[in-house]
Amino acid sequence: MSRRPALTVLVAPSGFKENLSAESVACHLARGVQQAMPDAEVLTAPLADGGEGFTQALVQATQGRLIPVRVTGPLGDSLPSFFGLLGNRHRTAVIEMAAAAGLRLVPRERRNPMLTTSRGVGELIRAALDAGAERILLGCGDSGVNDGGAGMAQALGARLLDAQGRELGPGGGELARLHRIDLSGLDPRLQQVQLDAAVNWHNVLLGPRGVARVFGPQKGATPAQVDQLDLAMTRWAEVIHRDLGQAIGQAPGAGASGGLGAGVAALLGGRLHPRFDIVMNDLQLDELLDRADLVITAEGSLDAQTPYGKVPAEVARRAKLRGLPVIALAGTLGPGADLNLAHGIDACASIVPGPCSLDEAMARSPHWLERAAADALRMVRIGLDLGQAVGAPGLRPRSRPSVMGQSIPS
Amino acid sequence: MSRRPALTVLVAPSGFKENLSAESVACHLARGVQQAMPDAEVLTAPLADGGEGFTQALVQATQGRLIPVRVTGPLGDSLPSFFGLLGNRHRTAVIEMAAAAGLRLVPRERRNPMLTTSRGVGELIRAALDAGAERILLGCGDSGVNDGGAGMAQALGARLLDAQGRELGPGGGELARLHRIDLSGLDPRLQQVQLDAAVNWHNVLLGPRGVARVFGPQKGATPAQVDQLDLAMTRWAEVIHRDLGQAIGQAPGAGASGGLGAGVAALLGGRLHPRFDIVMNDLQLDELLDRADLVITAEGSLDAQTPYGKVPAEVARRAKLRGLPVIALAGTLGPGADLNLAHGIDACASIVPGPCSLDEAMARSPHWLERAAADALRMVRIGLDLGQAVGAPGLRPRSRPSVMGQSIPS
Repeated sequence: MSRRPALTVLVAPSGFKENLSAESVACHLARGVQQAMPDAEVLTAPLADGGEGFTQALVQATQGRLIPVRVTGPLGDSLPSFFGLLGNRHRTAVIEMAAAAGLRLVPRERRNPMLTTSRGVGELIRAALDAGAERILLGCGDSGVNDGGAGMAQALGARLLDAQGRELGPGGGELARLHRIDLSGLDPRLQQVQLDAAVNWHNVLLGPRGVARVFGPQKGATPAQVDQLDLAMTRWAEVIHRDLGQAIGQAPGAGASGGLGAGVAALLGGRLHPRFDIVMNDLQLDELLDRADLVITAEGSLDAQTPYGKVPAEVARRAKLRGLPVIALAGTLGPGADLNLAHGIDACASIVPGPCSLDEAMARSPHWLERAAADALRMVRIGLDLGQAVGAPGLRPRSRPSVMGQSIPS
Repeated sequence: MSRRPALTVLVAPSGFKENLSAESVACHLARGVQQAMPDAEVLTAPLADGGEGFTQALVQATQGRLIPVRVTGPLGDSLPSFFGLLGNRHRTAVIEMAAAAGLRLVPRERRNPMLTTSRGVGELIRAALDAGAERILLGCGDSGVNDGGAGMAQALGARLLDAQGRELGPGGGELARLHRIDLSGLDPRLQQVQLDAAVNWHNVLLGPRGVARVFGPQKGATPAQVDQLDLAMTRWAEVIHRDLGQAIGQAPGAGASGGLGAGVAALLGGRLHPRFDIVMNDLQLDELLDRADLVITAEGSLDAQTPYGKVPAEVARRAKLRGLPVIALAGTLGPGADLNLAHGIDACASIVPGPCSLDEAMARSPHWLERAAADALRMVRIGLDLGQAVGAPGLRPRSRPSVMGQSIPS
């Protein structure tokens, strides 16, 4: 085999939900690459959407630190949470809303987005302000609430009043009774801080694709509650429009995290951004892509939803701007996985080595990630070797005896 | 992308036990290859060990035909069976012992190798002789009997007598009472026919690795029955040695298919061959390998046992004599699957796209085979493209900006 320059492989995965952090997935993939190609240079960029793992990914990528904070959880009880301070930017805090109001913080039997609150997110923002943050990156995703960010705003001093002038209680259901918004008590530091929220740009607050209809059921809402929540969100948008002069019903990203995007934009003066613009700019992914020959990305499930803003699709889109090949590995290749082949992913594979339960897959995914990455790279290497042996008329020098054989016409 | 000569891919899989024939596996793999590389030439060589699918693989590869025959089943009742006539060789019949005495023909609750008989195999041989066969290829594997081939020999006229001169009944247990072998009534046509049995060369009749100890339990023998069967096989070998002058206790392959190898060699005058020599010579695999650039093989399970004579290992061994790269796909990558990387297999992958049950895997394996083959070829193509873009110092022309990035040292 002829000697060739070493390959530079960029490993840029998402985390595996409820299983492995993006950092951990990246580490195991990198190990697999190096098993198969010991001379390869491996770059890693653990990626996050705005949801679980957002803070950790940014903090680890910048050698920043995590700050523990106790907050009000989605059910109203106190629980331990955290925010991050970036290591490479002065006074920039990172918050993931899921760390204070995530679906995982609500036991399955108590999931009811009529009642759950985003108050803890506001408490995290206040803690970041207390720590002197001049910029706050707020990651949205994996929420267990549907209160339009009302609880968050209340924690920061906003008053949401009913017709009798009494403060609304926690939960999205309460917003149906909203009469007036009073921002006179809002924490004044919000005027100074740059608040940037990373949101799924496809999420809107109202209508048939509105947050209550699309995400309510997976947060535990019954069909009747979905209708009630949609009405409550409608009321929320009406009063915001009247009292604050902002039209948020169909604003891109305002429906993110149970409408938290609406609260961020309309009440806190924050700005919404497509989540990958935030994540990838802060991780300098583009510079890493410039150095790579080949990209490996990964997500828990690769399916028909992946092209709509999931990590592998965004990585592939940026890789293809540079003509880079992309391999996507997944815990599950779900329905429509092959659609991704039209969106910049050149090949995909499951990491699962055979029939198994989901529990087993989650328990063994570190090892399986390594093995799958190694085997993917081994297949690439087969092609590399074949490609370097190009000659005419065949790829290898050989005789072509006339023999029996079954040649399949296409 | 530069234009390159089309790749010739040889698809040479085993069948997936109790699921898909080798022919079917090969067809689906070929379709997957062509999805990923429409310009590739695909050669197929569905392979079989001596067990289930042996007849079908050889008949289909040579455009021969199957002949239906009713035979005595392993439990003594009549059942439909078959043998094959090759299409490319005159008067050559193919028989798989599993078609008359296979484990699958014995309902789980009735599995008892003390009682089950190979008589139907003898009846298939007789039918092949009746059809004018001058050569018989007998495939061994997947048996549900442990009678040393006694029933087979009796069906062809051998007399196995107890101390009172009475014929033994069916089943391996009876051989403990064997007193004398009388071959005077043996079908005289056996003298003329060339009987070649394809056996696992590692299977011996007696001792700690003897057939009763190794395979008895999976055929339904209790520990006590294993001991009884081992004693019966010992008696079988003793009388064969005394009456026929042959030492078969440790002969390679004599333990194949519950000792059927012993009966073939000692009583019927047949010759035992390592199973792949038979299969691959008759499929002219070597000529197909001479034409291929890349080989894809497959088996239901790829594990630590694979190097010991399973189809993928044998395919890989022969491919490596020609320096060909080999990819192995499997329903399950079991414990020790990576050991195969030291035996000529360059990369492996499971066809399973995520957590699933065995039943689901078996039901969906045709589609999953196609997808796995396509993704494997897509990864190879990534390497082909990279390999053709070789330049120094990197693989692609590019600038290397100095940036933050996490480079993992090995």
